[in-house]
Amino acid sequence: MAGMITKDLQSLSINALRILALDAVEQAKSGHPGMPMGMAPTAYVLWTEFLKHDPRDPQWPDRDRFVLSAGHGSMLLYGLLHLSGYDLPLEELRRFRQWGSKTPGHPEYGHTPGVETTTGPLGQGLSTAVGMAIAERKLAAEFGSEIVDHYTYVIASDGDLMEGVTGEASSLAGHLGLGKLIVFYDDNEVSIDGSTALAFSEDRLLRYEAYGWQVIREVHGEDLAAIRSAIRAAQADPRPSIISVRSIIGFGSPLAGNHKAHSDAMGPERVAATRAALGWEYPPFVIPEEVYADYRRSLERGQQAHAQWQARFEALAQAQPERAAEFRRRLEGKLPDLTSALPHFAAGERLATRAASGKTLERLVPALPELVGGSADLTPSNNTRTPDMEDFSRTNPRGRYIHYGVREHAMAAAMNGITLHGGYRAYGGTFLVFSDYLRPSLRLAALMGVPTVFVFTHDSIALGEDGPTHQPIEHLMSLRAIPNLWVIRPADANETAVAWKMALQRREGPTALVLTRQAVPVLSEVERAGVERGGYVISEVPQPQGCIVATGSEVSLALEAQALLLQQGIAVRVVSLPCWEAFEGQPQAYRDSVLPPSLPTLAVEAGASLGWERYADAVLGIDHFGASAPYPAVYHNLGFTKERVADKVKALLGV
Amino acid sequence: MAGMITKDLQSLSINALRILALDAVEQAKSGHPGMPMGMAPTAYVLWTEFLKHDPRDPQWPDRDRFVLSAGHGSMLLYGLLHLSGYDLPLEELRRFRQWGSKTPGHPEYGHTPGVETTTGPLGQGLSTAVGMAIAERKLAAEFGSEIVDHYTYVIASDGDLMEGVTGEASSLAGHLGLGKLIVFYDDNEVSIDGSTALAFSEDRLLRYEAYGWQVIREVHGEDLAAIRSAIRAAQADPRPSIISVRSIIGFGSPLAGNHKAHSDAMGPERVAATRAALGWEYPPFVIPEEVYADYRRSLERGQQAHAQWQARFEALAQAQPERAAEFRRRLEGKLPDLTSALPHFAAGERLATRAASGKTLERLVPALPELVGGSADLTPSNNTRTPDMEDFSRTNPRGRYIHYGVREHAMAAAMNGITLHGGYRAYGGTFLVFSDYLRPSLRLAALMGVPTVFVFTHDSIALGEDGPTHQPIEHLMSLRAIPNLWVIRPADANETAVAWKMALQRREGPTALVLTRQAVPVLSEVERAGVERGGYVISEVPQPQGCIVATGSEVSLALEAQALLLQQGIAVRVVSLPCWEAFEGQPQAYRDSVLPPSLPTLAVEAGASLGWERYADAVLGIDHFGASAPYPAVYHNLGFTKERVADKVKALLGV
Repeated sequence: MAGMITKDLQSLSINALRILALDAVEQAKSGHPGMPMGMAPTAYVLWTEFLKHDPRDPQWPDRDRFVLSAGHGSMLLYGLLHLSGYDLPLEELRRFRQWGSKTPGHPEYGHTPGVETTTGPLGQGLSTAVGMAIAERKLAAEFGSEIVDHYTYVIASDGDLMEGVTGEASSLAGHLGLGKLIVFYDDNEVSIDGSTALAFSEDRLLRYEAYGWQVIREVHGEDLAAIRSAIRAAQADPRPSIISVRSIIGFGSPLAGNHKAHSDAMGPERVAATRAALGWEYPPFVIPEEVYADYRRSLERGQQAHAQWQARFEALAQAQPERAAEFRRRLEGKLPDLTSALPHFAAGERLATRAASGKTLERLVPALPELVGGSADLTPSNNTRTPDMEDFSRTNPRGRYIHYGVREHAMAAAMNGITLHGGYRAYGGTFLVFSDYLRPSLRLAALMGVPTVFVFTHDSIALGEDGPTHQPIEHLMSLRAIPNLWVIRPADANETAVAWKMALQRREGPTALVLTRQAVPVLSEVERAGVERGGYVISEVPQPQGCIVATGSEVSLALEAQALLLQQGIAVRVVSLPCWEAFEGQPQAYRDSVLPPSLPTLAVEAGASLGWERYADAVLGIDHFGASAPYPAVYHNLGFTKERVADKVKALLGV
Repeated sequence: MAGMITKDLQSLSINALRILALDAVEQAKSGHPGMPMGMAPTAYVLWTEFLKHDPRDPQWPDRDRFVLSAGHGSMLLYGLLHLSGYDLPLEELRRFRQWGSKTPGHPEYGHTPGVETTTGPLGQGLSTAVGMAIAERKLAAEFGSEIVDHYTYVIASDGDLMEGVTGEASSLAGHLGLGKLIVFYDDNEVSIDGSTALAFSEDRLLRYEAYGWQVIREVHGEDLAAIRSAIRAAQADPRPSIISVRSIIGFGSPLAGNHKAHSDAMGPERVAATRAALGWEYPPFVIPEEVYADYRRSLERGQQAHAQWQARFEALAQAQPERAAEFRRRLEGKLPDLTSALPHFAAGERLATRAASGKTLERLVPALPELVGGSADLTPSNNTRTPDMEDFSRTNPRGRYIHYGVREHAMAAAMNGITLHGGYRAYGGTFLVFSDYLRPSLRLAALMGVPTVFVFTHDSIALGEDGPTHQPIEHLMSLRAIPNLWVIRPADANETAVAWKMALQRREGPTALVLTRQAVPVLSEVERAGVERGGYVISEVPQPQGCIVATGSEVSLALEAQALLLQQGIAVRVVSLPCWEAFEGQPQAYRDSVLPPSLPTLAVEAGASLGWERYADAVLGIDHFGASAPYPAVYHNLGFTKERVADKVKALLGV
């Protein structure tokens, strides 16, 4: 097919991408022209000759995924989307980086049609793509390659390859043998500070060999035939592939090859010089019709592929209607009613909430085939693997449990990719303190509105002997500060079961389940509806003089303090507040009924006090690092006793 | 010297380490015996034959640094410290993981003599060691190899090598040619989830070749001669070296080679079986005298080396007293008075605080030769490199500026290592939003009390076009939640200069400087003493009806709103609160004088509102993600106008 296109038209089409990037950055007086100008030929070959997609239906499940990991080169993607016929008119490209446009500085999932994941923070795109490739492989194993059979393509930069998260993710991809993951490495030897020789002299490609990837070296960035054959070789190999594209940053401009081409508008003189050098005769944002026609070959090809897929899917629906319906349900992300799937725990026993989470999963995993679990090498501690789960591996792609290794960051990015792909809901575990290691990906989940579920166990100083390196202090509050993340810290086993329901029913963003290592009592007072509202009166007294509000393991402590105070003639209400975000979504009247502003309130939580001023007049928290000792010693020595809670209440009440 | 020791004694000494670990974990009913049992022979050879240290003076500047990156194997280190004659009595080993002991679950810097850095969170130790090796090389270049000439040794685990941060740091170490960095890789093929084959099948050693390291393969963990010659080969090579030690986790125990040996007490039967298998005849915590004598060979050797070093240092002090005095000052971390070194900025001009930071550094860098700067590939944006700084490199080890590459996490860990080593104070820059990428190392700096300085620029939605992926929202508050971290967000150029002084004078922990991308006015109202107190009344009015408290770029906005309100007959005070932590260290009377509890107070900060309830009755903040557009559009559309501030004040005052 490529043979039908003249070399002149190819050049024109490639230069269209370059000039669009140059002009949009010039107009915005902001942005990154260098990468799009260097990688335009690669993108052109991929998008016009290989990429299987249907610009009229960006949600078609079997489309190839394209991830611009080097998200600062967003104009390359916007140019491709526009030229290929996505719903992204030229007017939006003119409004690059302007308020309300569809063309923000970095590509944003859910904001612009055809953007598969939000990129910009380096390393995230490639690592998320690993998750997409996992999902593809798994879904194909589950539903058959007639219905699921696509590639995941990535353009990654030097910066992506320097970030540790891509090292983790690439090692995992090699381990899992994700052969349909194809990465174009924009090997342009330039980063913001200058030449990569300043900081990045390792043999990157040898490193990828070490990860178990196919490495395709020295593909000249202007050599379309070489790019074409590299893609074919990548498709043919059972390993993930990295293609080293020796591109020239800012190709065609006077700044070509210079790190100054990386970002910022080049100025009218250089723009004019680039136009002259590339022989581009059109004014800004004018694209000749033949260029559109050239790119829209893919539209026709995509529609054909889509139609053929549709026919295969209809055949499946005829032959196996339940299977087809299940595929539809899974791709639409619709859940069955979970209430009946939730376990009930009998009051009186003692159970760590991480153990309750494990038992809840034992019920949910069979009920929800879309659940894909995992842990960053803390499976026995996180209680994330149920007995009937098999491991996902190179040889068992139907397995539902992923051993991510000690790679928290790649785990979180891959979880995002698995969930973004469609067909699956990913959850993954680590210790709460190590949420720090995966925070950039967790933030992206929140920004994208992707409902990944993070299982954070060992949630306070009460983890005991492992000491301050492993004891979270600031983590709860610093997670609560992230917009659109739900943080749920259940008080007991039954609150934990409801927390899972809330996390899975949520479709608008991620949820962090924050769970104890230590056993806590199963409370008779739990109200499921109250948990779902984020907070509720778990234990009322007639005419309360005050209130104790707590979360997680501190709720049972608050109940003990309540009883102690009652013996002393002091009546206080106890409120369980497992999920601030859900609670803040309740009507003011409900919130005021649970936590009346007039009622003197003490907050009790084994974590940083900062932020509790929102709900409480005094706080029993921890504003220093923890200590290594058996759990009762640490917990009690740091002030978490019913006597201390009672004393704080009395001080607050002035009695 | 090794020839003088019989094989029987060697075995006894090695088994002493194993049994100490086994018994301590058994006594604590918690801990990790497997790694110490596997790596005891390597540690024995290193500590008795190679390590240059003086247990009587753990602070001797030219000691070799030993970092147990696999910090969960802490009993290996405690055993070595005890047996080698550090001030760590047997009684402390008996109290492993108990409240108040010197033997916490993971090694803690500043808590136990001889512990060079806190480890446990995987990847941190090795990455911090890279910083130590940078400091050694630099200090040797500056003061001569007669005074500075030591190795940095690391024991790292599979988990360390899986973490992305070590990939970043190892790439940097190879790039910089840190030949005196020697890593023992405990290649035992076991992690918590089971065999490393579950998740970690890459060719780790080929990866280290790609980083430019010397790779020494297949050293059998029980072969002392092989270990010895591997160390010699590592010392001789100009590249950093990794020695693959094929150890057996839990060696000698019935769980040898099994992932169940990784953690937890083995129980009395297995402990007895291990004693029998190793031929260990002594009760728990009884060590035969000849074992002590064997380990304390190093004490004598260390004292000799120390004495020789002292003689060389005295000779230097005679010949070049100023140079010797400077070395002492640098190692003691004493700063000259900085007040005269600080620039003064004239009120009226407009200057981004990142630019003011750059100008402050132009004064500080010549005055403080201990300052070592750097950036994670954002040098032109972070303003971290002054014109007279040369780059630190393989060929220019005296250079004072480090291009860390796009490796925020390794940068932070290396900064910790540089500062821990002594002789230097490291600062490094990235965007505030990317503080997420380096949070685990930043937390360790706070936990250790290491005064590294983080330069976080582009500190709000006001960075504009780069959009929500680059716009911090929750970061300020989630940094403030970290214990022992000072977060300073200066209002203008002069507050920025003072912020630098505060950061450098601080010796108890790290400081984050949070700086604007956009220009802000230089304010006539700044009071340096008030900045140092963390907060002060920057603009008073007679009989204030209310108060606006703000930080950073929002202080000038608050002043504008104050003027607007005054025109409307409403008098409000404006408070600048650049550093909460310093402010909270002030007497209550001062704090109440600045922010009287009775004065209705509005907080204004372009970030998450959570936490501002501590100081304010209402907050103008941002509790959602930002948007891509030119800065004035984002800033104003998200509500940061003087009119909106004034309206919020009026609503608060009910006028």
